[in-house]
Amino acid sequence: MKVIVTGAAGFLGSRVADALLRKQPPSLLNVTELILTDVHQPPSRNDNRVKALALDLTQPSAAEQLIDENCDVIFHLAAVVSGQAEAEFDFGMKANLEATRLLLETARRKAPKAKFVFASTVGVFGGDLPPVVDDLTAVMPQTSYGTAKAMSELLINDYSRRGYVDGRIVRLPTVSVRAGVANAAVTSFASGIVREPLNGKESICPVKKEQELWLASPATVVHNIVYAATLEASVFGKWRAVNLPGLRVSVGEMLEALRKEAGDKVASLVRFEYNETIARMVASFPVIFDNSRALKLGFVVDSDFAQVIRSYIKDDLKKN
Amino acid sequence: MKVIVTGAAGFLGSRVADALLRKQPPSLLNVTELILTDVHQPPSRNDNRVKALALDLTQPSAAEQLIDENCDVIFHLAAVVSGQAEAEFDFGMKANLEATRLLLETARRKAPKAKFVFASTVGVFGGDLPPVVDDLTAVMPQTSYGTAKAMSELLINDYSRRGYVDGRIVRLPTVSVRAGVANAAVTSFASGIVREPLNGKESICPVKKEQELWLASPATVVHNIVYAATLEASVFGKWRAVNLPGLRVSVGEMLEALRKEAGDKVASLVRFEYNETIARMVASFPVIFDNSRALKLGFVVDSDFAQVIRSYIKDDLKKN
Repeated sequence: MKVIVTGAAGFLGSRVADALLRKQPPSLLNVTELILTDVHQPPSRNDNRVKALALDLTQPSAAEQLIDENCDVIFHLAAVVSGQAEAEFDFGMKANLEATRLLLETARRKAPKAKFVFASTVGVFGGDLPPVVDDLTAVMPQTSYGTAKAMSELLINDYSRRGYVDGRIVRLPTVSVRAGVANAAVTSFASGIVREPLNGKESICPVKKEQELWLASPATVVHNIVYAATLEASVFGKWRAVNLPGLRVSVGEMLEALRKEAGDKVASLVRFEYNETIARMVASFPVIFDNSRALKLGFVVDSDFAQVIRSYIKDDLKKN
Repeated sequence: MKVIVTGAAGFLGSRVADALLRKQPPSLLNVTELILTDVHQPPSRNDNRVKALALDLTQPSAAEQLIDENCDVIFHLAAVVSGQAEAEFDFGMKANLEATRLLLETARRKAPKAKFVFASTVGVFGGDLPPVVDDLTAVMPQTSYGTAKAMSELLINDYSRRGYVDGRIVRLPTVSVRAGVANAAVTSFASGIVREPLNGKESICPVKKEQELWLASPATVVHNIVYAATLEASVFGKWRAVNLPGLRVSVGEMLEALRKEAGDKVASLVRFEYNETIARMVASFPVIFDNSRALKLGFVVDSDFAQVIRSYIKDDLKKN
């Protein structure tokens, strides 16, 4: 099948590409052609199924170039992250909502049977939340990032209902531990406070120790994104969005796990420096979810945060 | 204050204009200048506070012409109704979402303190609904009309959070009894089955007798729309949308009330002719609401459907 990945130069996008091309264990999808695109051309890969394109998806011509009649699956992961979308409202809306709409419109015209997998976020939630969030909880985003994602979800659901595309929306928990460098997501610290100390560097935590987060490891999130394309449309019922499963863990518990896995010296490299803006946005995200719908659909969850740290040490630390 | 009403030639728009201009009892707002706009120029009024404009709000220049720095309140009631938005997806999205966005953008630039009152709909709800819908229930619209309204709500809430406008979103129940003629809303019959018989005409009911509806009278809805502009922004908390109060009533109960108020001969003018498309869309709308938030904010509700019929007979029947 012919598969497209947007945001393919990004952290999750490049790993989704890895997962799609993987031969052992085999990829969940039988990929014969893979188009990787991002604002900057994604790195070339030693695999003749791959074509890499530099495209600005906010331009109407981009979707036209990207999508053709043979396209089977589109993983739309490209986004302007939360911190930047809050600081640059117009650009964020254009990249996170309008670019999605342009892709949907082109898919509708050229490849209406294509599975359209959209990376949304638990940041669509906010405001007055019930004690436990599930897939029937109202979204009241308190960030412009969450707003654009929630609007895109509604559009994808309606396009799917009308048979214009076959949408699947996965709401990602905060991903931790991300390899590489800090990004402009307000939750960037959730990776930084583990990654930087393990690399011998100091890391600043902008929220309090008591702040809880809703986390999933990169491997789990990547698996779940690809898995979403394998499901029958009917299993979603009348709503194509699923809250992906995650772990509820406080910053204090994360640091305690880091201490146990890597020692006092490493854990002591985290310094607390409270940032009001970040702390307020992070505090608006929910941390207690009922994941039963996602688990019933076959999405997977990490066992505990210590295991997430061990996976990072094993798979990523050596690469940094 | 300077007030704008879009959709001012429409049924609700013209009554909102009446309510704003009324001297006895005095209008809830002290209106010194009233701009009425619609695709066709709204009828002129014998009141020198009024200016009537024909504008196509899907054109970017329209908002520019309409909104200036002195604007205090915008009642954005213009919309393509549910039946038409379902049949003409692209036009519906342009009129119901893009036109709203254009108004918001212009208000943000020219009149960020303006109160932006938006007529949304309980048709934002659908899919798997809890037994009772409240303001914290997830929206999963099963119509393109509901989708565009739900997307507009998110945008207005984020513009309000950022201080770009001062938004207030009222989700309207089905309005019954509307005077005048049938429109392309899928719930048009909810007025027709009372209005046509009272005018001696046959009326077709496209849904079953058991179908329940969530209704409010024109007078109540108009009052609530204007009232929304009088509230302090802070009372809305982190979410600017309110489900307006309504009455839960079945088609059978409506006809029984009609029989009691107007006699057997009138009520027998309703003929049942099932329409699968309309019935499915109507059945996706919820009918049991917890109105406590709206009532606490001071919005009002009709006493019962018999009273609604009596008001129609008293205020509107003579005018037809």
